[in-house]
Amino acid sequence: MSLLTVGTVAFDDIETPFGKAEMAIGGAATYISLAASYYTKNINLVSVIGDDFPEETLNDMRSRGINLDGLQVRKGEKSFFWAGKYHDNMNDRDTLDTQLNVLATFDPVLPDTYKTPEYLMLGNLTPDVQIRVIEQLEKRPKLIALDTMNFWMDNALGSLMKVIKMIDALIINDEEARQLSGEHSLVKAAAKIMEMGPKYLVIKKGEHGALLFHGDQIFFAPALPLAEVFDPTGAGDTFAGGFMGYMSQTDDLSFDNMKRGIIYGSAMASFCVEKFSIQRLLELDDIAITSRIKRFVNLVNFDAKL
Amino acid sequence: MSLLTVGTVAFDDIETPFGKAEMAIGGAATYISLAASYYTKNINLVSVIGDDFPEETLNDMRSRGINLDGLQVRKGEKSFFWAGKYHDNMNDRDTLDTQLNVLATFDPVLPDTYKTPEYLMLGNLTPDVQIRVIEQLEKRPKLIALDTMNFWMDNALGSLMKVIKMIDALIINDEEARQLSGEHSLVKAAAKIMEMGPKYLVIKKGEHGALLFHGDQIFFAPALPLAEVFDPTGAGDTFAGGFMGYMSQTDDLSFDNMKRGIIYGSAMASFCVEKFSIQRLLELDDIAITSRIKRFVNLVNFDAKL
Repeated sequence: MSLLTVGTVAFDDIETPFGKAEMAIGGAATYISLAASYYTKNINLVSVIGDDFPEETLNDMRSRGINLDGLQVRKGEKSFFWAGKYHDNMNDRDTLDTQLNVLATFDPVLPDTYKTPEYLMLGNLTPDVQIRVIEQLEKRPKLIALDTMNFWMDNALGSLMKVIKMIDALIINDEEARQLSGEHSLVKAAAKIMEMGPKYLVIKKGEHGALLFHGDQIFFAPALPLAEVFDPTGAGDTFAGGFMGYMSQTDDLSFDNMKRGIIYGSAMASFCVEKFSIQRLLELDDIAITSRIKRFVNLVNFDAKL
Repeated sequence: MSLLTVGTVAFDDIETPFGKAEMAIGGAATYISLAASYYTKNINLVSVIGDDFPEETLNDMRSRGINLDGLQVRKGEKSFFWAGKYHDNMNDRDTLDTQLNVLATFDPVLPDTYKTPEYLMLGNLTPDVQIRVIEQLEKRPKLIALDTMNFWMDNALGSLMKVIKMIDALIINDEEARQLSGEHSLVKAAAKIMEMGPKYLVIKKGEHGALLFHGDQIFFAPALPLAEVFDPTGAGDTFAGGFMGYMSQTDDLSFDNMKRGIIYGSAMASFCVEKFSIQRLLELDDIAITSRIKRFVNLVNFDAKL
């Protein structure tokens, strides 16, 4: 099934306790589409870049089945740029610089061939841009997932609440779930957030895994305990991309299949953090992914003998 | 199989965002033995109290198969007392008061009938007392587990390192594992700590679950997502008691059975936090426990379809 994704395609300066990377390839839509490309070759990407973005990376993406007809390239302008530094615990980070550049005036325009996706992944962006993408669709996708962040809760809550009503699955982290709901307990937070619109809620807890809520059902996917986390940048986007890539490949919206999607997304995220930037996402294959999924099975599998 | 446990039997003043309890029943050995009593009726307890401790609670414990021949009662003295206040997040707490009382001069004396346990749970206490218990045993138990805390790492590291070499399974929380090993990554911390002696390491992560390490194997048990956590006091001890109670009941040291033990311990801990003090641990039955274990199965169970 076709997967449409919107989000940034950008540069990052990243500093972690393990090293530095300058002008590394980043952006939510980059990570989402690369992760999804291991599950489906029917991916349409909507974003905007300047003429500073390397053609080599775009060709890499095209060769993986990522259609870039919806990627606007602005002559004489610069791509979105973010710089951040991670704390020693790798869970917290400080933003050192944000340069919107082409993103400041981004108006997503969907090519006609993009307007009937079965699956839609709205990467973290201003809610108004996410709404503009939904408004251009000619039919309702089977599953619309949306990632957002606390910045939009602070600065565009009205638009955020509007787009949240239009989607099926909201993907946020634990602190964002607490902020959006005003509840500390994630169980209570989930109940309140699902009343705002989404039938599914994924709460990402970084190194502590992720929770999937749907009605009264809860599923927990662990994060893989890793000896080294080199660079957490893009892990959340990679999780979302793996999840939506798997959902569009399997085209099965049962809760059991959603669980698998969450595990497959977690597996992709566990690769992402092993190297800087998108490096690890460029070198995987089915054998590596299957082997990683088996590690998740072994990690949580038990026979209760009830 | 017989389970011997040593630890405090004490009073707690507890303040949480949900309320206050004064002179509530507490103590590591209290929680450990009550949790274990749902799995085995062959429990011997070693501890010390003043003559202020309620006979009713002791009778409750005896009626659950907990042998108190090793519980010293000091006339005219007071039981150990701890007062603490939990933060809104329920993960952090401030100690407001600690009165050692009878614990200041506690010398554990094992009755002869206590000296050949198959399973030994050393609750959090000064490492020298834990060593004194091991030294009085007439044969090596099949499994010795030990709980400790950062206080002993700061103040009695030599004795702690000595007792750690004498045991099989160390049960600590994530921050303690980081402090003991000097490693932030829990995978690296576990490798270093297992080199110090224990073949098994359990790292408790509170609301984020627990990890069991053994050689190259890792098992992760989630914490049950709860709408309300009323009082986390004793949850770690209850976890250890459920785990060791299950191990002594089943008498099977395979890694698969250890996994079940960790899940059963997690289930008992999930009950403990639902009410103040030991209240919830006094009112459970097999039906409630089995139903709770099923919730853990549903929470993490997935079919990878590999």
